[in-house]
Amino acid sequence: MVVAGADMARLRCPEIDYLFFGDEQRIRPLLANLPDLERISTIHHTPDAISNDAKPAVALRSGRTSSMRLAIDAVAQGKAACVVSAGNTGALMAMAKFVLKTLPGIDRPAIASFFPTMRGESVMLDLGANIECDSRNLVEFAVMGSVFAKTVLGLMEPTVGLLNIGAEEIKGHESIKQAAAQLRITPLPGKFHGFIEGNDIPAGVVDVIVTDGFTGNVALKTAEGTAKLYAELLRRTFSSSILAKIGYLLARNAFTKLRKRMDPRRYNGAMFLGLQGVCVKSHGGTDADGFANAVCVAVDMVTRGFNETIKVEVARINSAIAAASAIVDSSSPDSPLPDPKAAAV
Amino acid sequence: MVVAGADMARLRCPEIDYLFFGDEQRIRPLLANLPDLERISTIHHTPDAISNDAKPAVALRSGRTSSMRLAIDAVAQGKAACVVSAGNTGALMAMAKFVLKTLPGIDRPAIASFFPTMRGESVMLDLGANIECDSRNLVEFAVMGSVFAKTVLGLMEPTVGLLNIGAEEIKGHESIKQAAAQLRITPLPGKFHGFIEGNDIPAGVVDVIVTDGFTGNVALKTAEGTAKLYAELLRRTFSSSILAKIGYLLARNAFTKLRKRMDPRRYNGAMFLGLQGVCVKSHGGTDADGFANAVCVAVDMVTRGFNETIKVEVARINSAIAAASAIVDSSSPDSPLPDPKAAAV
Repeated sequence: MVVAGADMARLRCPEIDYLFFGDEQRIRPLLANLPDLERISTIHHTPDAISNDAKPAVALRSGRTSSMRLAIDAVAQGKAACVVSAGNTGALMAMAKFVLKTLPGIDRPAIASFFPTMRGESVMLDLGANIECDSRNLVEFAVMGSVFAKTVLGLMEPTVGLLNIGAEEIKGHESIKQAAAQLRITPLPGKFHGFIEGNDIPAGVVDVIVTDGFTGNVALKTAEGTAKLYAELLRRTFSSSILAKIGYLLARNAFTKLRKRMDPRRYNGAMFLGLQGVCVKSHGGTDADGFANAVCVAVDMVTRGFNETIKVEVARINSAIAAASAIVDSSSPDSPLPDPKAAAV
Repeated sequence: MVVAGADMARLRCPEIDYLFFGDEQRIRPLLANLPDLERISTIHHTPDAISNDAKPAVALRSGRTSSMRLAIDAVAQGKAACVVSAGNTGALMAMAKFVLKTLPGIDRPAIASFFPTMRGESVMLDLGANIECDSRNLVEFAVMGSVFAKTVLGLMEPTVGLLNIGAEEIKGHESIKQAAAQLRITPLPGKFHGFIEGNDIPAGVVDVIVTDGFTGNVALKTAEGTAKLYAELLRRTFSSSILAKIGYLLARNAFTKLRKRMDPRRYNGAMFLGLQGVCVKSHGGTDADGFANAVCVAVDMVTRGFNETIKVEVARINSAIAAASAIVDSSSPDSPLPDPKAAAV
């Protein structure tokens, strides 16, 4: 799946070449069947791999010669522009954070992913890297998410929504209310929409959905599960009678389009944002097509200068906030800089 | 919608009679058109109503003569067996909690609702009454949810899952891990399944989904939004070509069944569990059919003795835990009673 996906991605991103980390005896014969891919590929043999049930801390400690670790090291050493893995998410994040470090001005990296909506697609973060988030983390997620939407998705002025359980100011966790107050005065590279609710995510009310990793993970998986429920009920409906079966045959072309639009492979690839290096996690259960999408989003992040823009934007936002605070009474409780670390860029 | 819904519910629950609280001038003419309903109804006139944007604290303080408050008072005074309202959720919960009080052994009431799944339907709680929950709250939700599934849904041994972001023990908030540890030694009226993830909710992996009010609200609304997205895409697909339109006509009967099964009106009615009185909140935007479902679930909770069973089960669980702790070294850190209040029944 990985090798076949790399081959598909090669056709879409002609400038690419690959370093494969893993068991050479397994990779070599696969490449031999794909000479165009083989020509742009180098294999770095290692017999060690991180298992899917390995705990992140254990993987970090004892996985120094694993394929995952060596691939991340290659990014840190400048030998690769980005890393794509279909392995253990927790281990990948722990290693990427440890090896690549976070970007200046970013306290914690986040996992972001695409979400199909009524209007097209949105980006949601965090999806599980940070179970507990304070207001500063949420504000940083908003900055990273809007830079992503602007540079990688090419949106001129992405809208950013903070996930809450009501549009009213009085509801929600304290950290969310504080983040909203801060975002209202932060000159984002997009536009802060305010609070959104769960139903606003698939409705496509905003381009970027910001939330803590626990809530984001539950929302994403609940939506995936609901989509699966609908797909299954639809399948049963079309096979429930002869007439329905004929109906399906007639509507088949239209349904092929619908299936393509909602295809989970299209949305494959969870981006780790906030690291000094590009790292994308592919679903383990995807196919070559899905893996190719994960590779292409990593390439897009590199070629469109996502991390460089983050640095510029964080510096711009901080100097704008510093300039604003210079003309505000420094003893004011409304000082726009709630966290002294945020200015340490 | 309320009056027409009450009339529909009357046919399904023949033993019912109604007290209507509100503006008599508006209710009287509606009842006059429905003589069978009028015969079993009494109108309690009040010109005051809680607006949908009223803050709960304000509604509680200044809404003493509102229709909502008088209806809840009627339950507290034993004049009504249950209250059903399509009004402001926050105000309804604040008033119901203040007037009816919580059941003995229950620290905080929760909002529960039905969720359509691959297997039929599940019950999820809390859906927004408690934004921050400790492990004790989650354990109580599990008890209330399984009693609900057993008495109202008639399941012999309902399964209970705790919503988390991974099946592993190491993930999730501290409160969830503690709740899981406690639930493993709690003799629930159902069976504790362990952790579930967002996608397990629509898959119907468990009968009862336990979570904090923030996560539950986001999960429910995200699922509703995803269902709406699918319904809309399906509509567009069927109208995208002549062939697709003919296909729809042929499959129409099958789709009517699907629509019925997923009809949000079928799942209307959010139950407030843990109060000394039955209180059900109907969606404000539903129709008579949906409102009738909310009335019927309230009637079911009364006739099937939901609150009486809660009291019995809480007492039974606490004495079982007390008996178990009597044979455990009292200095043991694994003492099964983490909260002294839990025994004060």
